[in-house]
Amino acid sequence: MAVNLSPPSLLHPVAGVRIATCAAGLRYSGRPDVVVFEVAPGSEAAAVFTRNRFCAAPVSVARDHLARSSPRALVINAGNANAGTGNTGIADARACCEALARHLDCAPAQVLPFSTGVIGEPLPVERLVNALAGCVDRLDENGWLDAAHGIMTTDTVAKGASRRLMLGPHRITVTGIAKGAGMICPDMATMLAFVATDANVDRQALRACIDQAVERSFNRITVDGDTSTNDAFVLLASGKAANPRIVSPDQEGFRLLADAVTAVASELAQAIVRDAEGASKFITIEIVEGASEKDCLEIAYTIAHSPLVKTAFFASDPNWGRILAAIGRARIGALDVNALSIYLDELRVFSRGARDPGYREEMGQAIMRKPEVTVRVALAAGTHAARIWTCDLSHDYVRINAEYRS
Amino acid sequence: MAVNLSPPSLLHPVAGVRIATCAAGLRYSGRPDVVVFEVAPGSEAAAVFTRNRFCAAPVSVARDHLARSSPRALVINAGNANAGTGNTGIADARACCEALARHLDCAPAQVLPFSTGVIGEPLPVERLVNALAGCVDRLDENGWLDAAHGIMTTDTVAKGASRRLMLGPHRITVTGIAKGAGMICPDMATMLAFVATDANVDRQALRACIDQAVERSFNRITVDGDTSTNDAFVLLASGKAANPRIVSPDQEGFRLLADAVTAVASELAQAIVRDAEGASKFITIEIVEGASEKDCLEIAYTIAHSPLVKTAFFASDPNWGRILAAIGRARIGALDVNALSIYLDELRVFSRGARDPGYREEMGQAIMRKPEVTVRVALAAGTHAARIWTCDLSHDYVRINAEYRS
Repeated sequence: MAVNLSPPSLLHPVAGVRIATCAAGLRYSGRPDVVVFEVAPGSEAAAVFTRNRFCAAPVSVARDHLARSSPRALVINAGNANAGTGNTGIADARACCEALARHLDCAPAQVLPFSTGVIGEPLPVERLVNALAGCVDRLDENGWLDAAHGIMTTDTVAKGASRRLMLGPHRITVTGIAKGAGMICPDMATMLAFVATDANVDRQALRACIDQAVERSFNRITVDGDTSTNDAFVLLASGKAANPRIVSPDQEGFRLLADAVTAVASELAQAIVRDAEGASKFITIEIVEGASEKDCLEIAYTIAHSPLVKTAFFASDPNWGRILAAIGRARIGALDVNALSIYLDELRVFSRGARDPGYREEMGQAIMRKPEVTVRVALAAGTHAARIWTCDLSHDYVRINAEYRS
Repeated sequence: MAVNLSPPSLLHPVAGVRIATCAAGLRYSGRPDVVVFEVAPGSEAAAVFTRNRFCAAPVSVARDHLARSSPRALVINAGNANAGTGNTGIADARACCEALARHLDCAPAQVLPFSTGVIGEPLPVERLVNALAGCVDRLDENGWLDAAHGIMTTDTVAKGASRRLMLGPHRITVTGIAKGAGMICPDMATMLAFVATDANVDRQALRACIDQAVERSFNRITVDGDTSTNDAFVLLASGKAANPRIVSPDQEGFRLLADAVTAVASELAQAIVRDAEGASKFITIEIVEGASEKDCLEIAYTIAHSPLVKTAFFASDPNWGRILAAIGRARIGALDVNALSIYLDELRVFSRGARDPGYREEMGQAIMRKPEVTVRVALAAGTHAARIWTCDLSHDYVRINAEYRS
C-alpha cells in the first residue's frame, strides 16, 4: 500500500553507535519489539518530544534524564505506549532504564526510554527487562536495519535513511530510522525517529542542528491531524569522526552537517507519509506568495486536514472546489479570493475567482490519477512560502483505525 | 443509515408564509430541486451566513439584498452551489432574483437567493428561471414538507421541526426546515436552514433571536470540520400572530420566542448530525469545569475532529486513549492532566492521570455499542461548560465523499 516506498537498502554504520534488537513478546509474538542503542562515552545528544500535554511516561523520564546527563543508551519498545498509565507508568519506564544501566555499567539517568503502541495499558515491564540481558550481548554497529523493523507498529515498510559528507579530510556519516503511520501531525506524532552521526559536535550546536532538521521534516507532515503522546526525535553524535569540534551554527561544518541531518530527517518524514495508514497518494502542498510563513502553513494544514479534500484525492477526483472551501476557512488575516491561483502540479485550475478559462476536467483528471500530486496555491499577497507533505483518506484508513487499538 | 432520525410528521404552517417546490432538473432528474418562499408584506428577516472567505455568489447577493430591504421572497436551489463561479455567478444569482421578483411583483432586492450542491460549475440559470413561473402558482402555507425534500442533496432524511407557544392570548408558531449532511462545522457549513414564525417582532429583536439560536444549534455541530461556501440560516417573521410587537431582548415575549426558535434550530442541527454522511453514531461531547467556555469548545472540537476518535466510535471501541491524546493537543492554556476525568455516559474511565480503578473494558464496550453516546470531560479548572454534537467516521463517509462531486 505504501506510495513509492521501499525498505532502505543500505544504512551506513555510525562509528561509536551500536544497536541490538530482540523479541520480548510485549504485544506481538514472533517479531522483534525491543531495540537498544548504545553510544560511546563522550557522545552528545539532542531530542525533540511531543507537545501533547498527555505525554507518555517514557517521554517524561527521557526529558528528565536528558536534562541531567549525557546519554549512553536508548531503550525502545513497540506494542505498548506506556501512556495514560500514571505513576506506575513512570516507575515502569525508570525500571527499564535501571535494568539497561546495570547491563551497560552506566547511571540510570544516562538511559533514555521510548515506547510506542497501545495507550492506557500497563507496560509488561518484567518481560521487557528480562529481554534486555540477551539483547545487549548482540550490540553491533550494523544493527540499523533490524532496529528499523523492531520499532514498527502499523508501519508496513521499515524506514531508514543514510547520508555521508566530508568535513575537510574527515568523512562523516549520518544514519537514521523512524516509525510512524497514523496519528501523524506537525509538532510530532505517533512517531519515533533516531538519527546518529559520528561527527564531533557539542551539545549546543547539536541542538541547533535538530531544531533546523525538525522544522523542515517531521514538523511538515500530517496524516490525520492527530498528535500522539509518545513522539520523539533523537539525534546522537558520537564524535568518532574526529573532525574539529563543531561548536557554533556559524561554522561551515555546522551547515554541512545540519543539511545532512535535515536530508535524513526529511527522507524519514516523507517515508512516514508514504506509508501512512491507508495512503494511496503522496501529496505535496506548497503555498507561495504569502504575507507570512505562518499564513502559508495555516492554509497548507487546513487543506491537508480537510476530510473532503483527502477523500477527493483518494477518488482521483480533481474536485478543486473542496480545496477552495478549505482555503476559505483557514484561520488567517486578509485573503483576496479573486487574486489567488490554484494549481495541480503545473496545471492552473483556478484564477480570478473562477475556474481557469484554459482548464478542462480531463486535464485535472490525468494529474489526479498519479500516485504523487502537488497542490500549489499562489496567494498573491507577499513573498513567503511553506511546503508540507500529506496523504489521502481512504477506506483502509478507516478499516485500520477501526480495527487497531492504538 | 441516519441515527434515530425520521422525517418530520407534522410541520405547522406559519401564517403569512407560503411555499412552493418544483423540479427544474438542475442536476437531479425526477425530483424537486427548487423551492420558493413568499412572505407577507411587512415581514422581518434576519440571517447568518458562512464565514468562509470563498462565499458563494448567492451568499454575496443575499447579504447585499438583506442589507438593502425587507425580503418578500427566497429562492433556493439544490444540485449546484453557484460557488467559485466569479462574476458570472453573481450575475446568475441576480437573474434568479429578478425573475422571481417579476412574478411576485416586488423589487429584486427583496428576493434572497440560496444555492447548495456542486462547487465550480455554472448555474443552469435558464432552467431555474423557467421553472419559477409554474412554481409561484402553487405557493401554499402547507408547503413545508415538500420544501424539506426539495433542498436535500446528500441528505437521506428530510429535516424539519415545529413548535408552538402562547404569548398571552396569541398563539405563535415557529417552523423550520434544514438540509446538510457533510462539510459540516461550526460557523455554518454546507447547510441551509429556513425558519419562519408568525410572531410580530422587529428586525433588531429578530437579530438577537437568531444570534442566540445559532450559538446553541448550528454553531455547535461538526461532522468533518469542513465549512462550506454556501451556508445560510434564515429566520423570517411575518407578524401575522398580531401579538404586541417584540422590540427588545428584555421582554418576556422575546425570551419565549427565542427559546422556541432555539429549540427548532437545535432539533434541525441535531438532525443534520444524525443524518451525517456515513454516520452510525450520534455523539454528544460535554466539557465541564473549564476555565472558560472558549477552552471547553476548543477541547470539544479537538475531540470531535479527531479521525482516530471518530473511527474508534465507528468500531464501538472504548479507546479512551485516543480521547486523551486529543485533549492533550487542544490549543488551550493551562491543563492539569492529573486532575481531569473522562466519562463515557455516566461511566468514569479515566481519573488521576490513569485508567479509573473501577473501570473494566467490558463496561466501556457496553456503552460504545449504543447508537448515542456522551463523552464528558471534567477539567477541574473552573465553572464553564460547552456541549457539541458530532458523529463517527465510517467506511460510508469515505465512500460517499469519494463518489460524490460536492
